[in-house]
Amino acid sequence: MQMLMTFPRAHNISMALEIEIKVKVPSLDPIREKLIASGAELIADQVEHDLYYNAPHRDFAVTDEALRIRYLTNQICGKAMPPNVTYKGPKVGREGFKSREELIVDLSSAEEYCTILERLGFCLTAEVVKHREMYQCENALVTLDTLPGIGTFSEIEASFDLSEDEAIAVINKTAEMAGIVGERLTKSYLEILLDSRKT
Amino acid sequence: MQMLMTFPRAHNISMALEIEIKVKVPSLDPIREKLIASGAELIADQVEHDLYYNAPHRDFAVTDEALRIRYLTNQICGKAMPPNVTYKGPKVGREGFKSREELIVDLSSAEEYCTILERLGFCLTAEVVKHREMYQCENALVTLDTLPGIGTFSEIEASFDLSEDEAIAVINKTAEMAGIVGERLTKSYLEILLDSRKT
Repeated sequence: MQMLMTFPRAHNISMALEIEIKVKVPSLDPIREKLIASGAELIADQVEHDLYYNAPHRDFAVTDEALRIRYLTNQICGKAMPPNVTYKGPKVGREGFKSREELIVDLSSAEEYCTILERLGFCLTAEVVKHREMYQCENALVTLDTLPGIGTFSEIEASFDLSEDEAIAVINKTAEMAGIVGERLTKSYLEILLDSRKT
Repeated sequence: MQMLMTFPRAHNISMALEIEIKVKVPSLDPIREKLIASGAELIADQVEHDLYYNAPHRDFAVTDEALRIRYLTNQICGKAMPPNVTYKGPKVGREGFKSREELIVDLSSAEEYCTILERLGFCLTAEVVKHREMYQCENALVTLDTLPGIGTFSEIEASFDLSEDEAIAVINKTAEMAGIVGERLTKSYLEILLDSRKT
């Protein structure tokens, strides 16, 4: 039941569709060297501490959704950045590429927000900590990720403003340039972490 | 299942317990005059546009909870302030006083956050718009509220750092000073609005 409609609703936000690949790599060093040699710019060097929550009314492992609270610490200046909440919808799109709706909102307090989630019946299911370097490389963002105990990974994400075909072309070109080769994983780090616990 | 515990959890936030009264008043003018004469300071003059959501897995009208997105516009400078999400727990405490847990987090985007809520299955149930003046009056915050079509109300809220007994004493003293007299309502504006629609 909607009571008053005095203000115009401003819900026509553009749906951000993340298109990316993820590759497990033996070492980040040669990739970093190629990126820097190509003129890519280091835009972030940070520790990401992620809390994943599950809903009380459906299982995100089944619906392929994710609700994540992220704490960010900049490794260059040591400063904490604003934490955020991210919702990720089910994965869609072509094989080897991971596309999913992603909605991100910065928060004034992650602790207070986690308490709200818990009051609403959401449960903390996993925590993931990773070190991430991020390079801007023309129309792509390349990340070099280290997950203690899990391994080193590189992700390539295309700019949001590209069409799906353009995004895929940009990702393939960047992968070749930086030597990011190997099996393209469509699993999230959360899923990779859960799998590593099973074996 | 908790996977990694590298970072200390910082969840020991103080639970903010809101203790307040709400009175429907025929006019705000005499109260405003008494407040100003007593040295109370106008700290906000704003329009609050509130969106109330209900959960998919329980009915907040039954559990006496509330989940609200608030847009704020400062009437003095015309500037939009950061929107916030507020969770309110069930009302507790003495008759005539409204106490409930209140958790507030500022958001970088209310539109994006509403979309997250909708993806999670939460439903917009009501919108409330009110004009609110807020006066700081020693240990109490006094609000003068105008809800178009519903009426004028004054609320007195005690500082969070007071004990329940101290808070009640401060509220009663402030009510007497400012002439905020009449039936003390424990209903929220959402409930008052829903009631007004029934009659």
